[in-house]
Amino acid sequence: MAVTTIQWVKDHIKLIDQTRLPHDIVYIDCHDLKTLWDAIRRLSVRGAPALGVAAGFGVMLGVKDFPGASQDKFARQVRQVCDYIGSSRPTAVNLFNALDRMKAVLERNPGASVAQWKRLLKEEAFLIYEEDRQVCRSMGRWGASLIHDGEKVMTICNAGALATVDYGTALGVFYAAQEQGKIFSVYACETRPLLQGARLTAWELMKARIDITLICDSMAATVMRDKRIAAVFTGADRIAANGDAANKIGTYSLAVLARHHKIPFYVVAPRSTFDLSLQSGAQIPIEERDASEVRGFNGQVAAPRTVKVFNPAFDVTGNRLITVIITEHGIIKPPFTRNISRVFGKKPKSCRAYP
Amino acid sequence: MAVTTIQWVKDHIKLIDQTRLPHDIVYIDCHDLKTLWDAIRRLSVRGAPALGVAAGFGVMLGVKDFPGASQDKFARQVRQVCDYIGSSRPTAVNLFNALDRMKAVLERNPGASVAQWKRLLKEEAFLIYEEDRQVCRSMGRWGASLIHDGEKVMTICNAGALATVDYGTALGVFYAAQEQGKIFSVYACETRPLLQGARLTAWELMKARIDITLICDSMAATVMRDKRIAAVFTGADRIAANGDAANKIGTYSLAVLARHHKIPFYVVAPRSTFDLSLQSGAQIPIEERDASEVRGFNGQVAAPRTVKVFNPAFDVTGNRLITVIITEHGIIKPPFTRNISRVFGKKPKSCRAYP
Repeated sequence: MAVTTIQWVKDHIKLIDQTRLPHDIVYIDCHDLKTLWDAIRRLSVRGAPALGVAAGFGVMLGVKDFPGASQDKFARQVRQVCDYIGSSRPTAVNLFNALDRMKAVLERNPGASVAQWKRLLKEEAFLIYEEDRQVCRSMGRWGASLIHDGEKVMTICNAGALATVDYGTALGVFYAAQEQGKIFSVYACETRPLLQGARLTAWELMKARIDITLICDSMAATVMRDKRIAAVFTGADRIAANGDAANKIGTYSLAVLARHHKIPFYVVAPRSTFDLSLQSGAQIPIEERDASEVRGFNGQVAAPRTVKVFNPAFDVTGNRLITVIITEHGIIKPPFTRNISRVFGKKPKSCRAYP
Repeated sequence: MAVTTIQWVKDHIKLIDQTRLPHDIVYIDCHDLKTLWDAIRRLSVRGAPALGVAAGFGVMLGVKDFPGASQDKFARQVRQVCDYIGSSRPTAVNLFNALDRMKAVLERNPGASVAQWKRLLKEEAFLIYEEDRQVCRSMGRWGASLIHDGEKVMTICNAGALATVDYGTALGVFYAAQEQGKIFSVYACETRPLLQGARLTAWELMKARIDITLICDSMAATVMRDKRIAAVFTGADRIAANGDAANKIGTYSLAVLARHHKIPFYVVAPRSTFDLSLQSGAQIPIEERDASEVRGFNGQVAAPRTVKVFNPAFDVTGNRLITVIITEHGIIKPPFTRNISRVFGKKPKSCRAYP
């Protein structure tokens, strides 16, 4: 694979600084939680699954030097660490899912000592890490069945190795198709404002020797029509019980354009991205980020410095625009509310469609 | 108005260097044709109508120092100057329309002396200049009838004062609505790769005290849905006899998104932008520009330096996605082939729709 995004090395977290790619390959060693929090906030590590792994390792980091044997104090520290990590990115459900798993370790083992809890938390964090690797490969195999020789496909943002431990969700589908010997080419949208497509997806697909062409987001419609795109594959940051999917800003636009051009629109996301407590996408909070991201890029300001800006980091694609959702458990087809609850074993709730 | 984009000063052309906006207000004095050619090529001056004016003044510049009285040699020089200016931007029909008008001056006055030809060419160039000012104000008044108090509208690229002598096509509609006392707000797409929306439209609308919010192109779909955009106004670089319109890349995307959200999509363009020799948009040549524009942002390279890029400067919006076309002669409604020929006095030809 292209790269290992995040790992635990001896006594700390080591992660590749994605804000420096593609020109500099620099790693950040997180020996304390503040360094990790900043790395998440600054998007040095990003991508829903990678954030889950960062959360697991983050809890390990936050308690490894806990002194003494007081279970109460230890449990309180775990909660504080989880709250602190959770405050770094409010939209990423994987972050919270992973933190919940870490907290549940203590609840499942009320009689354990502090030393045992530390060991169990470490096991859980490594389990999250290893699961991500397996889950991505499983999604990749399911999704690869939807790519055929000679096709051109499109993606946005970076749902790749750099968004996970080392394989990817939407791009994992491309890696799996490549492993099966399929020949295809990818149009990658640059993904303003932070250009994850230009910086990260272009870099990792080139590294994997997949045929990739970079375009501006505004070119997607023309490319769909004139280059005859066969399918769009995207990741997701949070999926509601009815299949409405929040993902990087620009995804909803691609979904509408794909519908107009009669192109299938595929969302690739693991179980951990689903938030079945939400009936529809209208309940997903959308993070708004700093105006400077839209006014410029990487410190360089293109627009007037005081121009008013709207900068939502994500958008929500209504389930009616999604052809299927590819998970590690298989391909989920509409009607999504019924089929998501079937696959993940929850009863369907009544819910309203996203507008 | 916000700014005078291009003017003839004593013995040369003076134009604002739009590549330096909004941070630096720098003028280029073109004392020779090469300086003008470079300014057009580099997009220091851009926008279909402004290019027509640049072409007219350019011919003045190219013949003003012609020595002697040989009519043959003078006519040859005019042709050479026109060919040279025309080679700077192959897609801009206004450039060629203006050059044709300048060449026609000689044909209309075969018996004139070289001195008289020089004077007539100057008159024609100033006529093109003055016509642009009047035509923009006329389009503005027609278009303003489509904006209502309290509405939010959207635009892309810069179809403003900076694309014309001093008023604008799509933005001229906003200026006219403002002059009529209407209160409305504008969402401006930044317009990758060259960010004319962020650099130019944001600057000139702020200067005119119109409420403007800058967004990335990828946010247009979400803004249309969640902010309830009332209408999209764009300019055009070339319009075929059937109404298919070439404009800045990203325009076709907005047209598809507007259709999906049931939002009217208005093209604002003068008679000089119509190329009635083209039956449909399929015949409009699309300029592809340098890969570095997509790989980077404002001179800074974001993507891998060797990544393959597709960089069409324009796209074509099929007439079926256009609600009406606003011209200085009035508002043209579908069916466009019939109504364009009615307004502009040509017989309709059979033509195939743009795919």
